[in-house]
Amino acid sequence: MAESIKKIGILTAGGDCPGLNAAIRGVGKTAILKYGMKVYGFSSGYLGLINGEYRKLDEKSLSGILTLGGTILGTSREKPFKQGEYEDYIGSKPDRILENYDRLGLNALICIGGNGTMKTAGKLQELGLNVIGVPKTIDNDVWGTDMTFGFDSAVNIATEAIDRMHTTANSHKRIMVVEVMGHHTGWLTLFSGVAGGGDMIILPEIDWSPEVLKEYLLRRLDAGKPYSIVVVAEGIKLPKKRSKKKPESAGAVLAGMIQNLTGIETRETILGYIQRGGTPSPRDRIIATELGAYAAGMAANREFGRMGAYKGYNLVSVGLDEVAGKIKYVPTDHPLIQHARSIDTCFGDGMPAIKNRKG
Amino acid sequence: MAESIKKIGILTAGGDCPGLNAAIRGVGKTAILKYGMKVYGFSSGYLGLINGEYRKLDEKSLSGILTLGGTILGTSREKPFKQGEYEDYIGSKPDRILENYDRLGLNALICIGGNGTMKTAGKLQELGLNVIGVPKTIDNDVWGTDMTFGFDSAVNIATEAIDRMHTTANSHKRIMVVEVMGHHTGWLTLFSGVAGGGDMIILPEIDWSPEVLKEYLLRRLDAGKPYSIVVVAEGIKLPKKRSKKKPESAGAVLAGMIQNLTGIETRETILGYIQRGGTPSPRDRIIATELGAYAAGMAANREFGRMGAYKGYNLVSVGLDEVAGKIKYVPTDHPLIQHARSIDTCFGDGMPAIKNRKG
Amino acid sequence: MAESIKKIGILTAGGDCPGLNAAIRGVGKTAILKYGMKVYGFSSGYLGLINGEYRKLDEKSLSGILTLGGTILGTSREKPFKQGEYEDYIGSKPDRILENYDRLGLNALICIGGNGTMKTAGKLQELGLNVIGVPKTIDNDVWGTDMTFGFDSAVNIATEAIDRMHTTANSHKRIMVVEVMGHHTGWLTLFSGVAGGGDMIILPEIDWSPEVLKEYLLRRLDAGKPYSIVVVAEGIKLPKKRSKKKPESAGAVLAGMIQNLTGIETRETILGYIQRGGTPSPRDRIIATELGAYAAGMAANREFGRMGAYKGYNLVSVGLDEVAGKIKYVPTDHPLIQHARSIDTCFGDGMPAIKNRKG
Amino acid sequence: MAESIKKIGILTAGGDCPGLNAAIRGVGKTAILKYGMKVYGFSSGYLGLINGEYRKLDEKSLSGILTLGGTILGTSREKPFKQGEYEDYIGSKPDRILENYDRLGLNALICIGGNGTMKTAGKLQELGLNVIGVPKTIDNDVWGTDMTFGFDSAVNIATEAIDRMHTTANSHKRIMVVEVMGHHTGWLTLFSGVAGGGDMIILPEIDWSPEVLKEYLLRRLDAGKPYSIVVVAEGIKLPKKRSKKKPESAGAVLAGMIQNLTGIETRETILGYIQRGGTPSPRDRIIATELGAYAAGMAANREFGRMGAYKGYNLVSVGLDEVAGKIKYVPTDHPLIQHARSIDTCFGDGMPAIKNRKG
Repeated sequence: MAESIKKIGILTAGGDCPGLNAAIRGVGKTAILKYGMKVYGFSSGYLGLINGEYRKLDEKSLSGILTLGGTILGTSREKPFKQGEYEDYIGSKPDRILENYDRLGLNALICIGGNGTMKTAGKLQELGLNVIGVPKTIDNDVWGTDMTFGFDSAVNIATEAIDRMHTTANSHKRIMVVEVMGHHTGWLTLFSGVAGGGDMIILPEIDWSPEVLKEYLLRRLDAGKPYSIVVVAEGIKLPKKRSKKKPESAGAVLAGMIQNLTGIETRETILGYIQRGGTPSPRDRIIATELGAYAAGMAANREFGRMGAYKGYNLVSVGLDEVAGKIKYVPTDHPLIQHARSIDTCFGDGMPAIKNRKG
Repeated sequence: MAESIKKIGILTAGGDCPGLNAAIRGVGKTAILKYGMKVYGFSSGYLGLINGEYRKLDEKSLSGILTLGGTILGTSREKPFKQGEYEDYIGSKPDRILENYDRLGLNALICIGGNGTMKTAGKLQELGLNVIGVPKTIDNDVWGTDMTFGFDSAVNIATEAIDRMHTTANSHKRIMVVEVMGHHTGWLTLFSGVAGGGDMIILPEIDWSPEVLKEYLLRRLDAGKPYSIVVVAEGIKLPKKRSKKKPESAGAVLAGMIQNLTGIETRETILGYIQRGGTPSPRDRIIATELGAYAAGMAANREFGRMGAYKGYNLVSVGLDEVAGKIKYVPTDHPLIQHARSIDTCFGDGMPAIKNRKG
Repeated sequence: MAESIKKIGILTAGGDCPGLNAAIRGVGKTAILKYGMKVYGFSSGYLGLINGEYRKLDEKSLSGILTLGGTILGTSREKPFKQGEYEDYIGSKPDRILENYDRLGLNALICIGGNGTMKTAGKLQELGLNVIGVPKTIDNDVWGTDMTFGFDSAVNIATEAIDRMHTTANSHKRIMVVEVMGHHTGWLTLFSGVAGGGDMIILPEIDWSPEVLKEYLLRRLDAGKPYSIVVVAEGIKLPKKRSKKKPESAGAVLAGMIQNLTGIETRETILGYIQRGGTPSPRDRIIATELGAYAAGMAANREFGRMGAYKGYNLVSVGLDEVAGKIKYVPTDHPLIQHARSIDTCFGDGMPAIKNRKG
Repeated sequence: MAESIKKIGILTAGGDCPGLNAAIRGVGKTAILKYGMKVYGFSSGYLGLINGEYRKLDEKSLSGILTLGGTILGTSREKPFKQGEYEDYIGSKPDRILENYDRLGLNALICIGGNGTMKTAGKLQELGLNVIGVPKTIDNDVWGTDMTFGFDSAVNIATEAIDRMHTTANSHKRIMVVEVMGHHTGWLTLFSGVAGGGDMIILPEIDWSPEVLKEYLLRRLDAGKPYSIVVVAEGIKLPKKRSKKKPESAGAVLAGMIQNLTGIETRETILGYIQRGGTPSPRDRIIATELGAYAAGMAANREFGRMGAYKGYNLVSVGLDEVAGKIKYVPTDHPLIQHARSIDTCFGDGMPAIKNRKG
């Protein structure tokens, strides 16, 4: 019979997002209270694991953190398997990770993070550690799970910002372009764009053309709609630039292009870091708590080399080897895109199909 | 071949909730813009249908309402099939509904509401109308759908209120009892209770005993936790009263009982109507938009006698005859209950199973 | 020359309110960083002073608490001079306070609280301690200052709740009665009532009559306004009850009376404890920081027996003997009342004077 | 005896801000209900006045707009007295304004706006119109009034954004630079910076040096504070650039400079238009309502050529000729600056004076 799990480590890696502390609490309280495990928290993501920086987490240190943004453990973008480093075996980062894992007598390691973190987690599993992944991201782009915490909070923040744009756009009869985060994917833009009543939504997953932008925005003007809201993902493809200057943001490029094409005054807002911070939404607290508690159960059941995940509203686990190296893009036939098209939202790839429209 | 759908009516019935206007907009814009239908909105729920009070909804009247709380159509708790009224055929309410439906030349009627509304919708379908249901409720208790709009907004409001209780409870070393809505079910209490970090959560679906309350709350005190948050559903079973006075609220009864049992100062807050009102959350706007657009599509496809519904994150339809007269209770083995128990939340039916705990 | 101030104590007493931690931080950081003092925090208001329960506050323990609701020191409603206790000199509470003050070698004591706290602070000053008061309250009823922290946050919460009532009232064509805190005064009700667009505002300071309520609400109905919002202070005078039952809340009594008088469906909401808790508003953080920093300066300048206060936007100090035992009521000719009357708000003492109104 | 005031016009000009609709409602309802006036609203600021685009405002059109962001009248940055245009008398813009004013038979014109709007209002008064100004701005830079609406809402939005930065900064051990609006002044930056717990606050009114920035931020690092928040006004003076490229924002320049100087990872966020939009805060609703109602009273009392203003919390009026062409800067000895310095906030002009600090 396999040894029982008595000591686990936990770390948070990659960009911060709302709900990390709720997840740490979910893992930690379940491990301590339900399973009687000891729990150690590493500082600053994989950096703390490399450098052996950790502290013991007890019930008290996990109390009162449910609503806190950020992560009490700290995080970093450290990637211990970056090219060139693994070959140098003596004193290499993976080596030091193994040593620290053994010295502490850990039976399992819980890695909370996004796509990059899961990739590293998978490699650590291959090295012989018992690894469990917990997905987090405001981008909702982790392959293998229908939902992650961080996303709902970010949708709320971005939507509230878009709400604010409406009053300014309407008062000044302007086009307002709002750039939303999401890395290479359009999840955050799609959901906040629909929730915020965006007239046009531009995603990395859907090819768009300047001609369609122009036609749609001018048609709105003709129809007596004096302003428009354009919600655009940071990761969309942009026209190639001739000059070698620092690349402009998607929002700025699009705003300039739209003003040129339509002659309507256009302003951009880049939402930036406000989308990552602050108190998690109630839904993210629930998702983080569930994923955390579920991951502690996976440890108790020795489900290693796997990531906790949502299939619909149900919790399951998927192999880290399935997840690693993939990105979950928005399917171009996603129901929300179809429903948005049916209420006249334009995705830049063609006019929404409107019946009985004149002209 | 069946006649094509050219004119539809729409009404909102039952208690108001955030997202009704987003749903009206979703139905209306899709019907008008995608399918070229004409759309008529009835006032004050079934009352407007009985009295023939309606107005035509065009694209302009549906614009700018996505974020508005309440319903631009008004609502009421009118039940046209209440006992005794249907027998009186001449001038009966169902009769007048049929007349108005025919006089307007409607091809379909979209009824947005909760359990009571779906029951009436089913009866109207039996009478020969083409009826489509759209579920709404802050209680999440509509049978046949995994999710309705209104619920997420209410969870947000209740959770924010519970968040506020923590600071007062902690500052004064008190027990704070928060009463949450939910009619006969515990969905809203469960989700806001977990998201708000409630120590004890009392639901209609789980039997609780005063002895467990006492033991758990005193054990927290012994463990050096000077305060506790108890989240309780309005619909829980309460001890029978001897007197004939007006029944007290669940929150007030529980607070009195807890103070008597534990000797700890205890205060209650009844959240009340703040849980129903205001701007819908981004998630509820999306759910309402999707359900609305989907219902318009059901009308175009002549899927009558059915209700739009979520199965996980996917939209489907279910028969109104399956839905009518049923309530969706929280299953006592719901994963969120299990996960909450594993982080030491008490549901009043026994101590959370904690390993290695002394005593 | 007087001895310089090297050690100060600080406590928070009375009901909790948003901004207490910001004030503790303002006092503490200024005392430590600007004046080089040592700072001791007593637990649970005057109780900690009596029992000698305190801890040293350093810069680190004051860091990160600006946005936290409640008080890190705890609070209580302990009144050390309650009747009968001061006569028993040996071992009396004031005696123990003097002993603890001397034993710690304190040069001054900062008491953060409301009217009751200031009264006690004044008595301690008479006993020979060097006392400085800092006013806090969500009620805005501390005599001698134009503004206190806690009030703005409570206005925000109550206004947001009233905002939510509008959508429910409008959807159901109801009268909604919202009961707001404020102890014996109407400040919170007046400000949230005007900010929330309340149609009728009932304050303890203005006599109201049922006849006026009836006339005004029915006149609104006649004018085609299908719903009304009534905002009422918890402290208003109510008709005497004949029975000996537990007194009902002002909101419940008024709602019952209005429904009887007008025949319009009427519902009440008692906002309760949500008004006290949670993160302070930005304005309250500023007021608390300023009052705190100013109080530390008062200590350095030996301005004892006085309370920090706002005169307009300027900070001044007033004698605790002037403040003690008084309540700051809303003047019945307050400009905000006059302005509200001019936009047709009714205060229950007569119809708003409307020109050219028919009937 | 002077003619009584029977008809007034109203317009909103300049950038939009929260509270404009509340002010329109305050002016309009008071004028109609208290004074029996007729009220006409011009579209798009002075543009509507030039082009004669207006509509009559009745009680109903003013109802339900208290909480709406933006302005129902629309706004523009049109300046009818721009150089060169006034000379051309026939058909000149001021000429057309006079004609429209006379044709409508207006007795007074209420101009709601910022510094530019007041300047134009003063010129219209000189031309013979009866003009009353109502100050609005998120920048709080209108000369002659202690407070304007829009500011409190913008402080709330900016503070909430800064709150979010703390969690990201802390999780990643970074410096976060947040750029706040304010035109040429630092009011919004100062208030949101202090309320948001900014470590360093850089204002246009206070000269700062890179050396101080470096010393202060590194001293924080030495003191074990792993992250810092820098709040900077958009209008600060920046080092001259050699190249002719489009000027970078203050936040971007400062972030680059700080990373170079300190070697600490630094990120910037430009808050942008989210600061102007959305629902006004309760306080702004009150300020706007009061200023609006007061302006209607000024019209009734024939106080022309003047602007409604706050002196402390009291409403007064000041001559438009006194206001025009001036900007209200933050005094460098503002109490809030002094109090912020005393809790170790750095304004870039020198180290905060800290007692007993080593080194």
